Amino acid sequence: MPQLRIALAQVNPTVGDLAANATQTVAWTRKAAEAGAHVVVFPEMSLTGYPVEDLALRATFAEASRRMVDEAAVSLADAGCGELLVYVGYLDADPAGPRDAAAALWQGEVVARQFKHHLPNYGVFDEQRWFKAGRTLDVVRFHGVDIGMVICEDLWQDGGPVSALGAAGVDVVVSPNASPYERSKDDIRLPLVARRAAEAGAPLVYANQVGGQDDLVFDGDSFVVGADGELLARAPQFVEHLLVADLSVGGGSGAEGTFGGLAVRRRVLSAEPVPGYERAVPPVSEPLSDEAEVWSALVVGLRDYVHKNGFRSVIFGFSGGIDSAVTAALAVDALGPDSVHGVSMPSRYSSAHSRDDAAELARRLGCHFRVEPVEDMVRVYVDGLGLSGLAEQNIQARVRGMLLMSLSNQEGHLVLATGNKTELAVGYSTMYGDAVGGFAPIKDVFKTHVWTLARWRNASAEKRGEVPPIPENSIAKPPSAELRPGQLDTDSLPDYAVLDDILDDYVEGDRGYAELVAAGFAPETIDRVIRMVDRAEYKRRQYPIGTKITFKAFGRDRRLPITNRWREGEQRSL
Amino acid sequence: MPQLRIALAQVNPTVGDLAANATQTVAWTRKAAEAGAHVVVFPEMSLTGYPVEDLALRATFAEASRRMVDEAAVSLADAGCGELLVYVGYLDADPAGPRDAAAALWQGEVVARQFKHHLPNYGVFDEQRWFKAGRTLDVVRFHGVDIGMVICEDLWQDGGPVSALGAAGVDVVVSPNASPYERSKDDIRLPLVARRAAEAGAPLVYANQVGGQDDLVFDGDSFVVGADGELLARAPQFVEHLLVADLSVGGGSGAEGTFGGLAVRRRVLSAEPVPGYERAVPPVSEPLSDEAEVWSALVVGLRDYVHKNGFRSVIFGFSGGIDSAVTAALAVDALGPDSVHGVSMPSRYSSAHSRDDAAELARRLGCHFRVEPVEDMVRVYVDGLGLSGLAEQNIQARVRGMLLMSLSNQEGHLVLATGNKTELAVGYSTMYGDAVGGFAPIKDVFKTHVWTLARWRNASAEKRGEVPPIPENSIAKPPSAELRPGQLDTDSLPDYAVLDDILDDYVEGDRGYAELVAAGFAPETIDRVIRMVDRAEYKRRQYPIGTKITFKAFGRDRRLPITNRWREGEQRSL
Repeated sequence: MPQLRIALAQVNPTVGDLAANATQTVAWTRKAAEAGAHVVVFPEMSLTGYPVEDLALRATFAEASRRMVDEAAVSLADAGCGELLVYVGYLDADPAGPRDAAAALWQGEVVARQFKHHLPNYGVFDEQRWFKAGRTLDVVRFHGVDIGMVICEDLWQDGGPVSALGAAGVDVVVSPNASPYERSKDDIRLPLVARRAAEAGAPLVYANQVGGQDDLVFDGDSFVVGADGELLARAPQFVEHLLVADLSVGGGSGAEGTFGGLAVRRRVLSAEPVPGYERAVPPVSEPLSDEAEVWSALVVGLRDYVHKNGFRSVIFGFSGGIDSAVTAALAVDALGPDSVHGVSMPSRYSSAHSRDDAAELARRLGCHFRVEPVEDMVRVYVDGLGLSGLAEQNIQARVRGMLLMSLSNQEGHLVLATGNKTELAVGYSTMYGDAVGGFAPIKDVFKTHVWTLARWRNASAEKRGEVPPIPENSIAKPPSAELRPGQLDTDSLPDYAVLDDILDDYVEGDRGYAELVAAGFAPETIDRVIRMVDRAEYKRRQYPIGTKITFKAFGRDRRLPITNRWREGEQRSL
Repeated sequence: MPQLRIALAQVNPTVGDLAANATQTVAWTRKAAEAGAHVVVFPEMSLTGYPVEDLALRATFAEASRRMVDEAAVSLADAGCGELLVYVGYLDADPAGPRDAAAALWQGEVVARQFKHHLPNYGVFDEQRWFKAGRTLDVVRFHGVDIGMVICEDLWQDGGPVSALGAAGVDVVVSPNASPYERSKDDIRLPLVARRAAEAGAPLVYANQVGGQDDLVFDGDSFVVGADGELLARAPQFVEHLLVADLSVGGGSGAEGTFGGLAVRRRVLSAEPVPGYERAVPPVSEPLSDEAEVWSALVVGLRDYVHKNGFRSVIFGFSGGIDSAVTAALAVDALGPDSVHGVSMPSRYSSAHSRDDAAELARRLGCHFRVEPVEDMVRVYVDGLGLSGLAEQNIQARVRGMLLMSLSNQEGHLVLATGNKTELAVGYSTMYGDAVGGFAPIKDVFKTHVWTLARWRNASAEKRGEVPPIPENSIAKPPSAELRPGQLDTDSLPDYAVLDDILDDYVEGDRGYAELVAAGFAPETIDRVIRMVDRAEYKRRQYPIGTKITFKAFGRDRRLPITNRWREGEQRSL
């Protein structure tokens, strides 16, 4: 059977940076050539980055993207890689509209060009807004092997393009993907792709993006499965990687024509198999543990957001509490201690242990740290305007937010917001106070999960013989905003274990009031939580962007009206 | 020919408030009955409000909406309106998914039910995310008249559902709509609907929503055209209204079957024409002038946002400049002077004329006004942190933002942001400073247009013999942020006339760099403006919501990535 060495280029493009992404394409293809590969598969939209959002609708951007594909083909040939068959993803456009496209480049030219057929339009995806669907499948014969391709969502369709390729006959299917990370998604992807390989009757090559783009993070996890569904090779998660796998595939003959409504076109590039060579044993990376995976997603999401937006350092409040402690540990893991600036901003209501825990956190992390008391600033407002109650509480948080923004303006750091998903869900935060910032690393992490991550991060440090970064006291003590004497989060919120349980059912599970009652939660607690959630939409919209790790991240995935009188469980009749 | 009196109920529903919207349905149907109407047409999604956003995906909401339709049918009969045929819009759901639906209610029951066929997924619309498309058309014979219906976007399709109804044969087409306002949209709607009436060979009854919902405002402008395209009746814009029109239509016989891929179903409710009666002459309201229309949209958008979200008053900075002056005039027109609180917040850089102009504005409007100097608060930050340059400028704006938020917390007013679309486009604002607020009334109004509106509003006051609300000096003086000595907007920005011209081409027209050069703008100015626009996405996302009046309002219509290295006109090659 003909042999073929395929390289999966698990790269990290930046949206809009066509030239840099194309340069990256050439560099990684060179590496693949050095590794003896015959075919290289880059991820979906590897030349433009993903998602391009409404940039897809700008004619000049689509034109530049099309031009860059042609240029990349020439550059690859100029770089001595013209004999490799290179699949890249890009934005195309024709009179029907913009297209999520992939092209095969060979000998300085585009030799195949295919548009995505299935355009997801749920969750983080708005592809029916951005793209028009394709109707063709381009199969090329390369070194005697018939190679078909499908782009990302096309893989997820039962009886879709993959089964069309199977019916038409191919020897291998390559698939460029931009599949955003969410918890345990890798548990779904591999069995799905294995099933599709069986449908195609051919090995399937799954190349995914890696890295952060706005609130999305791509985990990589590129892999190859055999026609029998066996996992042949797998790349590590959350790092750029070139995965090389050898395939021996039947050079069977296939048909042209229409299969499953899609027109299959064929082109012979080279009929001659490559001379026989010795197969290398490809690596099969182990997936990360659940917590390591989430931690890596948060680290990579933060790092890429900071660096891709031209920042080199971050600044935020060190309150002594668990949220800022976990944010700090993430920031140091992402950017290094010298790029992290912690500020303790005690007021008259700040406890001694808060100040100590904040200082201890900075000591353990080795990051920058300063103390800036806010009492003077707060007093000017409280006394000058006669503030009391909520107004007095909020102004403390706001004075801190303005202090951080001032230091950001003065010194050039990006401000991080340290709020978690539970706070965001119920609106337990101060607009323009603790909600200030350019990025919110743990925005999509429920409070109980923040604690779990803290314990996991400390334990993993201990395993490596390192100092656990997070002070035990920050993990153990009861959470408090410390905006009035003796305040505890539980004054305003149900116990976090119960609260997160309800939120998980209501937000992630989209369960209704009756189902929550049936699940055994106290009706008055459900009612209280649901009201808080449904009323906090405006606050959530004003919150900084942050890395998404769940299916229902606030902001991108869940878009509620602001003016909204619907109250679950309060279904009035006429 | 059979006669029929049709009432168009141009109502203002609130998203999610099923019970109130249903109560409104009964109340307006009663009015229609009193006016002798036989048929009443409510707008699209009149029972749920529009847009429901991702509420469409909540099973409990869809169920409640379905139930409310059945309840409304019974309530209408109980209210003595059972003999009227009443079309309402609502959210349906079946195993295929959620549906944008309309139902005909008669004698306590749902007698026809149709799902929208064409789901717009551009601009403000994400309907392919929310709904599944229908494939049927329900025609009922009522008093011997065959009535077909099409929902909103279905009207906009050449050769779509209307031409299917025409082929099947109907005597009249009713169309429930939720068509958001944008400038001069009424110039497009009427000729379009007239063409469709010709396609249907029948009069067309176009009922639209009115009122504000988040950033959308519906202008009403409901109307009836004859089969020959003649305008027979037209409702006034921006107010709730019951438009009653008499039709004499041929009771021709139509066919069942499939037309244009849609299944036409027919049901006879009553074959007997209503006894002959004397036609009334229906009103044909004149559309508003361009500026009056925009002003009304901004007034209604602001009023409904404030009231529907449970606020009764607003507070914001009176700087003496044109933006806050126009915002104040809008707020007083929307809410009355007693609900408007102006705050002058002078710093050391505030000019005497600014303070005077702010006070004069308040005097003319008769609204609440106070002076709160911010120098003390600014000093604590500037001296305490050693701020200079941009940090010193920004802290002034931020201290003002926090002051307004404190007064909002203390007194319960909604804070308005007074920024305009030009500032938003180029990022000429301070996050957490002048960008603070729960609503931004002139967010979608370019600066030059703000001046035009100011002059128009003053002139219209003069015409009515009233005091012009906006001080002439606020209109005439050169704009300045007054954050450093002698600062003018033109220090940082091109002249507003040029800037708005470029922005109009780049943002509204989606023109590329080369087209802008060809249009005669100076390349260095284009370059400067485009860079500012492309880099300000994060600021724009953090800006408060505000009424949309153009096709490309920031936020909802134009969604760019934040991490985005694409720079129009800077198209690097490899």
